[in-house]
Amino acid sequence: MDTSRRSYAPINFADKLAQFADQWQPRVIAELNDYQFKIVRIEGDFIWHDHPETDEAFIVLDGTLRIDFRDGSVTLGPGEMYVVPKGVEHKPYAADEVKMLLIEPRGTLNTGHAGGERTARQDIWI
Amino acid sequence: MDTSRRSYAPINFADKLAQFADQWQPRVIAELNDYQFKIVRIEGDFIWHDHPETDEAFIVLDGTLRIDFRDGSVTLGPGEMYVVPKGVEHKPYAADEVKMLLIEPRGTLNTGHAGGERTARQDIWI
Repeated sequence: MDTSRRSYAPINFADKLAQFADQWQPRVIAELNDYQFKIVRIEGDFIWHDHPETDEAFIVLDGTLRIDFRDGSVTLGPGEMYVVPKGVEHKPYAADEVKMLLIEPRGTLNTGHAGGERTARQDIWI
Repeated sequence: MDTSRRSYAPINFADKLAQFADQWQPRVIAELNDYQFKIVRIEGDFIWHDHPETDEAFIVLDGTLRIDFRDGSVTLGPGEMYVVPKGVEHKPYAADEVKMLLIEPRGTLNTGHAGGERTARQDIWI
């Protein structure tokens, strides 16, 4: 047995989610070049906003997420994803708590250019 | 009822996986700026390679994936991810079939700069 070999740790979504309970505050769990993977719990209604510089990917881990657009909506369950194109106004909504993964460039604000009190802190790693 | 509202389609991993059975041939299911989300089925051993220009993210959907490094390995199950840093040699391995999601820049070859007969075709969308 080669005892010199290192064991690297996987990033487990459930383990990460178990480390916090507050909603609307994304945690960074990994980086891919200048992109970040963030997990977040959300429930209720968010604000209308867009990201003029970037697309934004949503992957649902648990629950049902609805993303409203000005002309329609998409509903995502576990094992489903959607990419909101840059510049497209959207508003996430969850009747019950949703646990999800966001993938977007480092520095992307959750409220885009809308700002305001719903803007979450950046770069909280777990 | 506002019948003018559009219904957008979620991207469902299981539905996408049901559309092909061949292994080692990634399919693109979404793009995020200049990055692609690809799903792939793999089984057995791949070749040693690295990606000198980019990190590479793996998210396991089904099965058990081992990624070997020159000095160790990481083992991922469903609901787990890992980001292989750019320039780090690695070799994916799956004793039984693994279904997984890859996230990497458009144009990233599965064999990196190693090339050869295991190099998959690019930009096959489903």
